Amino acid sequence: MKTYLDCIPCMLDQTLRAGRIATNDERVIKKLLDNMGSLIKDIPLENTPPETGDIIYSEIRRITGVYDPYEKVKKSNIEEALSLYPELKEIIQKSDNRLLTAIRIAIAGNVIDLGVGNEFNIVEDIKTTLKQDFAIFHFNEFQEHLEKANSILYLGDNSGESVFDKILIEEFNKDVTFVVRDVPVINDVTLEDAIASGIQELAKIISSGSSAPAIIPKLCSEEFLEKFKAADLVISKGQGNYEGLSNVDRSVFFMLKAKCKILANDLNVNKNDIILKGINI
Amino acid sequence: MKTYLDCIPCMLDQTLRAGRIATNDERVIKKLLDNMGSLIKDIPLENTPPETGDIIYSEIRRITGVYDPYEKVKKSNIEEALSLYPELKEIIQKSDNRLLTAIRIAIAGNVIDLGVGNEFNIVEDIKTTLKQDFAIFHFNEFQEHLEKANSILYLGDNSGESVFDKILIEEFNKDVTFVVRDVPVINDVTLEDAIASGIQELAKIISSGSSAPAIIPKLCSEEFLEKFKAADLVISKGQGNYEGLSNVDRSVFFMLKAKCKILANDLNVNKNDIILKGINI
Repeated sequence: MKTYLDCIPCMLDQTLRAGRIATNDERVIKKLLDNMGSLIKDIPLENTPPETGDIIYSEIRRITGVYDPYEKVKKSNIEEALSLYPELKEIIQKSDNRLLTAIRIAIAGNVIDLGVGNEFNIVEDIKTTLKQDFAIFHFNEFQEHLEKANSILYLGDNSGESVFDKILIEEFNKDVTFVVRDVPVINDVTLEDAIASGIQELAKIISSGSSAPAIIPKLCSEEFLEKFKAADLVISKGQGNYEGLSNVDRSVFFMLKAKCKILANDLNVNKNDIILKGINI
Repeated sequence: MKTYLDCIPCMLDQTLRAGRIATNDERVIKKLLDNMGSLIKDIPLENTPPETGDIIYSEIRRITGVYDPYEKVKKSNIEEALSLYPELKEIIQKSDNRLLTAIRIAIAGNVIDLGVGNEFNIVEDIKTTLKQDFAIFHFNEFQEHLEKANSILYLGDNSGESVFDKILIEEFNKDVTFVVRDVPVINDVTLEDAIASGIQELAKIISSGSSAPAIIPKLCSEEFLEKFKAADLVISKGQGNYEGLSNVDRSVFFMLKAKCKILANDLNVNKNDIILKGINI
């Protein structure tokens, strides 16, 4: 997805929110905004928004000296998600369609996103998402691809959401590789967060090789790109990964909630819609 | 009022909205955002927000070549306000307290603000404002000052709101001077707009001498500053004028609706509260 004009003020807003998490020093945050402001001219609209996210969070690390501003928040989100695990497994147990229910739960987890500035309540959002209609619903196609697939590459998004991803992966009974961010960026899932979520119990875990808050192929490692090319099925969680991958030339199934109006417009859906969308399928 | 950190992304947002009113050319709007982004480092937090507004709208005029992007919108808002005039006069006629009702109407008109990015519906907003409790209510003090005053300086804010200002000024029966912006900026009231609103029928009209979307004394003309110093009573309408004048050393009565969270916090009220506040009284 390209950068829309509306993304630009939003990036400054994100810089401010992240800066405030990293430091209380107003002068340091002003310096961050000054620098990000000056960088706007170097952001072509052809870039995907998370490429700019990468620049924002590199600047935050550089200027505040704080490597992982969201560390505590991530831990607490993972703990909250883990506490819901037994109840969610029971919901799947009782459901008519285990796979679809697990997909709904994995998408519900996508609200735990500290990049977009929406407030969320995990328990309430799960309730809503379990009943909500999909705006794009390539479920039959997904099932077909899943049945045929031997290897699945699962592109993680946020910490906490990762527990809900685990619940979905448990339904696959396949060779799954879970992809994490290379370094802490926003509240995105890193190796450490994936392990805290218990992903290693049923999937391999690899890094994207990039510090960006999304899978942006040109920024990823060779190792990742080989796996991305070779996997029978690629599942991409969340908004950032969609923004980075919406134009790739292989099949990808996107599972996400449209959390901002601009991305919703790009997908031709409404804000807060849930989406299971396959491309090149 | 100082510039808060939150004002900075909001300024970019305002640049985008105003840019879109001025032109459909995405590249020109990107250029505007690039330039405004680069200017952030030159905006000290000690500046009042409308000083930056002045820079934004000067850039818009310079880069798009459009002198008055809001010209049509202003005309249509004035027309809508004029069409409500007879009904509003009747409401005042039937009210228990003509002055207070006229103040409420003048404050209701303050929603016609295209700078803050809120949507508004004039008729609905009048209904609400006529019943709404004031968060700050220096009405008795205002009445006392009004009774004693021979000369009133009335600082206008938006076009359309100016018709509601006229309704309030009609209750005074005093020597009133109405102050307009020197050039078109956002939808703020200029000489032409004041005349289209009928203000000249009952007040003198002078310019602030400044292109800023607010009264910022250091940017105003000597002529204005003399009148500002000499007036028995100064009435300041709207958010921008409050931001520019909240720290002056003479008595001022502010009438406004708190249309953004940051200004509401500065006044220790909630967003959407209505305010009649005297300082140095």
